[in-house]
Amino acid sequence: MSRIVYVNGEYVPEEEAKISVFDRGFLFADAVYEVTTVLDGKLCEFEGHCARLQRSTAELEMPLPWSREELLEIHRELIARNELIEGMIYLQVSRGAPADRDFHYPEAGTQPSLVMFTQAKSLVDNPSAARGNKVISVEDIRWARRDIKTVQLLAASMAKMQAEAAGADDAWFVQDGLVNEGSSNNAWIVTKQGTLVTRDLSRLLLPGITRASVLKYAEAAQLKFEERPFTIAEAQDAAEAFSTSASAFVMPVVEVDGVSLGDGTPGPVTKRLRELYIDESRKALL
Amino acid sequence: MSRIVYVNGEYVPEEEAKISVFDRGFLFADAVYEVTTVLDGKLCEFEGHCARLQRSTAELEMPLPWSREELLEIHRELIARNELIEGMIYLQVSRGAPADRDFHYPEAGTQPSLVMFTQAKSLVDNPSAARGNKVISVEDIRWARRDIKTVQLLAASMAKMQAEAAGADDAWFVQDGLVNEGSSNNAWIVTKQGTLVTRDLSRLLLPGITRASVLKYAEAAQLKFEERPFTIAEAQDAAEAFSTSASAFVMPVVEVDGVSLGDGTPGPVTKRLRELYIDESRKALL
Repeated sequence: MSRIVYVNGEYVPEEEAKISVFDRGFLFADAVYEVTTVLDGKLCEFEGHCARLQRSTAELEMPLPWSREELLEIHRELIARNELIEGMIYLQVSRGAPADRDFHYPEAGTQPSLVMFTQAKSLVDNPSAARGNKVISVEDIRWARRDIKTVQLLAASMAKMQAEAAGADDAWFVQDGLVNEGSSNNAWIVTKQGTLVTRDLSRLLLPGITRASVLKYAEAAQLKFEERPFTIAEAQDAAEAFSTSASAFVMPVVEVDGVSLGDGTPGPVTKRLRELYIDESRKALL
Repeated sequence: MSRIVYVNGEYVPEEEAKISVFDRGFLFADAVYEVTTVLDGKLCEFEGHCARLQRSTAELEMPLPWSREELLEIHRELIARNELIEGMIYLQVSRGAPADRDFHYPEAGTQPSLVMFTQAKSLVDNPSAARGNKVISVEDIRWARRDIKTVQLLAASMAKMQAEAAGADDAWFVQDGLVNEGSSNNAWIVTKQGTLVTRDLSRLLLPGITRASVLKYAEAAQLKFEERPFTIAEAQDAAEAFSTSASAFVMPVVEVDGVSLGDGTPGPVTKRLRELYIDESRKALL
C-alpha cells in the first residue's frame, strides 16, 4: 500500500509527493525537522517535538505559520489515513520555494514548505535493543550549531556508513577528545559507581527530547546522574552505555571502538531505563 | 516567460520542476552542485566545473552516471531552450530518492537525481564591480569539508543575511583569526608591495575554478602571488582586496569590517585582473 504523504496542505500518494526544485530545503539545506514516535496509534512526546521545532525555526529566523493545534491535527490525520499503529512521523519545514535561487532569505511573506510522512516500524519490540549496539567513534566534522535540528545531515549519514563499514551499528561524534553525541541520538554511559553521565547541553549537541525525559525519569527513580562531557576511554571503562532518541528510546550500547562493556550484553540500568521510558511514554500518549 | 528546467531526464516548465520529498538532497543535504557561467550564449570554464563535480561526488562516494559529454549536452540544450545569452547554469546532483528516509546511503543502483536550471543575469556589466563590495567578517561555523561543494549552505546563507543586516554586501568566513574564504567566493588581498595573497587550498575552503584561473593569469602577467592565510587586520591594511567566483568573476572589495581600503574604490590590480579574467574566459568559451 502506498503511503499518504502531507505536502504543503495536501494529502497525496507518496509517488506524487513532490516539492519544487527551488525549495530552499533542496538548494540550501535551509530546513529543520522533527521525528515523532507513534505508539498504539498515538503520539509520543508531541509537546517536546513541537517546542523544539519552534526553537529551531526561531534560531534560524524562519517563519513557522502553523500552530501547535494545526501541526497536531496533521499528525493525527496522517496516523489515521495510514492506519499507523507503531512507527514515526517525519516533519520537515523549509524556508519555502522562492521564484529563484538566492543565498539571501526570500522576501517576507514567502510561504515556508511543510512536508510530513509516516514510517511504520516496530519500535518497542526491537532486536537491536535485545542485542545492544556496537559503536565506533568518528571525528565530529559537523557545523557548529548542532543544537538546531537542521537537515544538514551529510556528516551524520557518512558516520552511519563508516560504522557499517567497520562492522558496527552506529557512530559517536568526538571532538577534542570528548563525546558530543551519537550520529542520530544522545550518548550516555553508566559509570561503575552507577552514575548516569551524558553531555551537558550546548551548541555542540542536540537537546534530545528523549534525553530530557530519561533525565526526568532517572531523577524520579533516584538514580544518580551528571550532565558533563566524557571521553571514549571513560565509555570503554564504563559499566554500561546507551543512546537515546525518539524512535530507538533507550538503546543499549555494548561495545565502543572494539571494547566490550561489562559482559557485552545490555546492562541492568539500561534495560530498566528502557522499560521505564516506554512505560512512562505510553501513559502520556496524545 | 517561464524557464525550461531540466529534472531527471526531462525538460519541463519551471512551475512543474519538482523532485520527490524523499530525495536525499531534500532530506539529508546529500547533494553537490556547480554553477557555470554563460557568456555570449556559451559556457565559461566548463571543464573546471565538470572536473570539480566529479571530485565532489567521488569524495562523497556518490555515483555520477553522466559523462562530461552528456552534461555538456544538457547545458547547451538549456542555453538553447531558454535563449540564454548571459547568466548562469545551476547544476545539482543528489544521491537520489530511495523508497524511504534512511541515514544509510541507498542501495547500489539507486539513480542519483540531476537538476539543472538557468539564471539570466548581466554579469560583465555589473554595478557592484564598478562600486566594489563592502565585506564583514563572520565566524566560520560550517562543517569541516568545505572543499566539497555540497548544498549544506545554511551557514553561507546566514552569513549573507548578517552582511546585509550590517549594511555590507558580503561576508568573509574567519577561523582562528584567519580568513578561509568568502560566503560564496574565494577571498584575496593585494598587499602594499603589490603581492596577491589568497589562502592555500585545504579542506578549509573550496578550490575555486575562478581562483585557479586568476592565479594562472596572474602568473602569466608576471604578478607576484602567495597562497597563504591572511588575517582581517592584514586585509584592512592591504592596498586592495577582491573576491573570485564563477558568476562575479573578480569582484573588488573596498571595505573590510568598516575599514576602507585605499581610497575606497576598486584598485588598479583588481580592475586589471577582472578585465584579464573576462577577456581570457571569452577566448575559451565552449
